[in-house]
Amino acid sequence: MVTEHEAMGRAVALAARGLGTTSPNPVVGCLLLGPDGDVVGEGFHAYAGGPHAEIVALAQAGKRARGGTAVVTLEPCNHTGRTGPCAQALIAAGITRVVIAVDDPTPVAAGGAATLRGAGVEVVTGVRRAEAEAGNVAWLTAVRRGRPYVTWKYAATLDGRSAAADGTSMWITSEPARADVHRLRSTVDAILAGVGTVLADDPQLTVRDLRDGSLAIKQPLRVVVDSLGRTPQKARVRDAAAGTWIATAAAVGAGPDGRVDLSALLTALYARGVRAALLEGGPTLAGAFLAAGLVDRVVGYVAPKLLGDGRAALAGAGVTTIAEALDLDLTDLERIGPDLRLTAIVRPKPSDHPARHPYSE
Amino acid sequence: MVTEHEAMGRAVALAARGLGTTSPNPVVGCLLLGPDGDVVGEGFHAYAGGPHAEIVALAQAGKRARGGTAVVTLEPCNHTGRTGPCAQALIAAGITRVVIAVDDPTPVAAGGAATLRGAGVEVVTGVRRAEAEAGNVAWLTAVRRGRPYVTWKYAATLDGRSAAADGTSMWITSEPARADVHRLRSTVDAILAGVGTVLADDPQLTVRDLRDGSLAIKQPLRVVVDSLGRTPQKARVRDAAAGTWIATAAAVGAGPDGRVDLSALLTALYARGVRAALLEGGPTLAGAFLAAGLVDRVVGYVAPKLLGDGRAALAGAGVTTIAEALDLDLTDLERIGPDLRLTAIVRPKPSDHPARHPYSE
Repeated sequence: MVTEHEAMGRAVALAARGLGTTSPNPVVGCLLLGPDGDVVGEGFHAYAGGPHAEIVALAQAGKRARGGTAVVTLEPCNHTGRTGPCAQALIAAGITRVVIAVDDPTPVAAGGAATLRGAGVEVVTGVRRAEAEAGNVAWLTAVRRGRPYVTWKYAATLDGRSAAADGTSMWITSEPARADVHRLRSTVDAILAGVGTVLADDPQLTVRDLRDGSLAIKQPLRVVVDSLGRTPQKARVRDAAAGTWIATAAAVGAGPDGRVDLSALLTALYARGVRAALLEGGPTLAGAFLAAGLVDRVVGYVAPKLLGDGRAALAGAGVTTIAEALDLDLTDLERIGPDLRLTAIVRPKPSDHPARHPYSE
Repeated sequence: MVTEHEAMGRAVALAARGLGTTSPNPVVGCLLLGPDGDVVGEGFHAYAGGPHAEIVALAQAGKRARGGTAVVTLEPCNHTGRTGPCAQALIAAGITRVVIAVDDPTPVAAGGAATLRGAGVEVVTGVRRAEAEAGNVAWLTAVRRGRPYVTWKYAATLDGRSAAADGTSMWITSEPARADVHRLRSTVDAILAGVGTVLADDPQLTVRDLRDGSLAIKQPLRVVVDSLGRTPQKARVRDAAAGTWIATAAAVGAGPDGRVDLSALLTALYARGVRAALLEGGPTLAGAFLAAGLVDRVVGYVAPKLLGDGRAALAGAGVTTIAEALDLDLTDLERIGPDLRLTAIVRPKPSDHPARHPYSE
């Protein structure tokens, strides 16, 4: 027997197992408690098109769900997409109480709580809301803004440099830190890099096991921001290991400077189902994204080294005086091997107007 | 009743209370245990010229020390400086066992253990040695190298910048971080800055309470590295709040580039009793110290901000390719208000030859 609060904690943990494979859907976890409070089923949404968390848990519980409670991280959906509406399935299974952490912000899927209440089911919302929102931050932010949640990842020395004076940069960070980057990549739907980085370093931009080079089954879309279409035909980023989009100004649309319009790029990626994107190299592209207010989170891998010269990790973010510095909040510090991983959230500027867009399942 | 191991832990903690006021002496803590193992006296060395830790503890214990054990963080001295030899005082008080963490590395003061043994006192060394060495690291390193232990302190954004494009830098870090810098200053004997920083920012370089501006009683020596003697007569660093040395190339000696010879500068500071020095601003002076292998520790105050342009925290450290990057070991991470404080130890290069010098009390 577990409390509903404990059950929600478990549901949030279950939900996280779907990170990186559910887009354009959110991650969701569900626990079913029988009438006596015992856990009779659990599930999470594993991939888009696959069964929702509630359906997985109901299948496991069978008749033991009757008269019981569903504890679910996100308001059960009310619409028929590739799968049927979960609210109806819960009613049909005889669930009498539903405990929800976060309301569904999308107009298409929302309304599940109202449907449940209409059928006489007791509905409670807001249980462990902050934890559940944090677990779904990329999807929630993407849906609210109508563009992917963007994480800028950089690697630098203590003095903020990502290459030495002669341009060498392999390797600034340790193998454990580089392995962690692959873990980070596995949680997103797209990896973005500028053509300058492709020309300089020829990265593959895949999710790999660094020990044997084996590729993960699910690979994010590789996106090269390449205004003039200069990505070489033999670039590793074009290999068969994953999908690739060479995003040219002609394809995406150009800003006043003739370069790829980054906001249009993100809108296009959202339309392709991308909810979480990882921006990797180089400093100028990162500066352009930051200057446009299009970065939500920063993950920095900092090596305990000093260079004193060489390329800075960031350039051209549109800041000229200290009062205009982009402000972030440090949310996590982790030592990874000899290095340090910093996670920080970019504070929205007062001028940022969030947009609401529906999501399609 | 305490164990000798516990007593040494307390002695190390007591020793730390002298940090910043004992130079050119080390910090030392001492506990005296009576024959039954009860604590009968304790003391620490508070300031140069004042009583040593053992003498303070013996004065407190009086006759209760007879037949007891002295637990002391550093080998008791064997010479008569401004105070008499502690080894003789322990013998005279009837101490029968002495437990030592660290042997004295200085030829003048060493020999205390031998003297004690010669008088029939049982001597044990190496108890909690690592902790005691860490507590005395500045003094031990200084004495072994014949120059002050140098800590480079910087403040920077996540992208390693210490000023914005227009030169503004106040304030990159938060008030709690700036207050912590004053605490750090209070642990050293000298604060070093380049004349460029004096001309640009006119800092006072004192230890102050940031809330009311009140000065600490003990102030480090202010040292301006000023090859050509350009420090203005009205510079705040020349005010009456603390001692000041304008270290010109004429006074210190010049290197091949005509600038102050930094190694000679440190030798001169050592001769003046400086054992711990804090190097603050600017990036070029820090680069010169690092290039010369004259920095032992780095303390960075990192603000969760991004600038993308402006002065780097470090310049000209003599590194041209990634394999030559200066390697450090992160030893401490601390969140201070919204900011992060990183502490890292510079790994000695294979070419660094430690020198042994005596110290004068």
